[in-house]
Amino acid sequence: MDSERSGEATMTEPKGRGIASAPAAVVVTHKATKQQPQGGWKKGIAIFDFVLRLCAIATGLAATATMGTTEQTLPFFTQFFQFHAEYNDLPTFMFFVYANGIASGYLVLSLPFSIVCIVRPHAVGPRLLLIIFDTVAMALTIAAASAAAASAAAAIVYLAHNGNSNSNWNAICQQFNDFCQQTSTAVVASFVTSAIFLFLIVLSAFALRKK
Amino acid sequence: MDSERSGEATMTEPKGRGIASAPAAVVVTHKATKQQPQGGWKKGIAIFDFVLRLCAIATGLAATATMGTTEQTLPFFTQFFQFHAEYNDLPTFMFFVYANGIASGYLVLSLPFSIVCIVRPHAVGPRLLLIIFDTVAMALTIAAASAAAASAAAAIVYLAHNGNSNSNWNAICQQFNDFCQQTSTAVVASFVTSAIFLFLIVLSAFALRKK
Repeated sequence: MDSERSGEATMTEPKGRGIASAPAAVVVTHKATKQQPQGGWKKGIAIFDFVLRLCAIATGLAATATMGTTEQTLPFFTQFFQFHAEYNDLPTFMFFVYANGIASGYLVLSLPFSIVCIVRPHAVGPRLLLIIFDTVAMALTIAAASAAAASAAAAIVYLAHNGNSNSNWNAICQQFNDFCQQTSTAVVASFVTSAIFLFLIVLSAFALRKK
Repeated sequence: MDSERSGEATMTEPKGRGIASAPAAVVVTHKATKQQPQGGWKKGIAIFDFVLRLCAIATGLAATATMGTTEQTLPFFTQFFQFHAEYNDLPTFMFFVYANGIASGYLVLSLPFSIVCIVRPHAVGPRLLLIIFDTVAMALTIAAASAAAASAAAAIVYLAHNGNSNSNWNAICQQFNDFCQQTSTAVVASFVTSAIFLFLIVLSAFALRKK
């Protein structure tokens, strides 16, 4: 019984594989040629959208984490050198951390909708939802990045100016790599996230059009 | 032969006209009732889009002009009070003026495309063009507004801090209405422009979808 079944299996298996593979190949090519002008590129856009979202999560989390750890070093910085611009700069950096955190959280939540767009390339609802919230998230990240950049530049200018008059801590960025390096890394990461959002919006707009 | 032909013409003409006009009327009414759920609201969206663009031109120009005139008062401010944060703040305000100027210019150039969308509610090309450039313009205005807000806040904190140590120019905003008032007006106008852009993108996304 076992040998018969195994014999049958070995007999039918190559045959079945042969039969299955031939029409499968035919179906695939037929599907590909049929769907090429309509659904093919929409599915491609949806997959690209998903990959871009994963990249944006990485840069968004990098921006949040980098600025979050910069905040840790700032109080020490403040205590030691009487950094009096703190109540101006800290709210901006707080806003930066919250805005990038919200954008990253939204991106994680948007992944299922992106998968729905891959499975159903012609679905309009999820794509419309994504384009609207992508626009809001882009506005949030770009505002956070710009404000943090301007604020960090102001802080460095302020410190450099005070450094000139005190003449002992002149080149802030050379002495305090942490502040300069981390802040600029976070700002660049946030700008990259916004650029990815911009690209996602354009992609969705192309996928939304009729043909 | 001629009379026969003209007779035939006069005989067939009214008949032909009668035949042609009746179905034409039927076609028109049929078309109108058929287009109501599809083209009607798309035309409405396109007209609303056009009106919003006019509003955005107003706020964009207001932001540009207000910040442009603030720049005029800033050198005087600088000369008089040794405002040393100038090389940090002026580039930001310059960026603000250029960014809002470019956005306003783009808005004026986008009006013909918006009119095309009103005339042909189903045209995909101009709407796709508008949504892409609207996204870029939104990114530009929101970045300019955020950077200028952070920069102005930093300048005021800097001045207030120096004012505390010098103890004679304490409340900057009460003494220098021009700087505070104009900067905040310009920043608010720029944020309103970005909000209108956000709304325009959402509107275009709705107009782009299939039905």
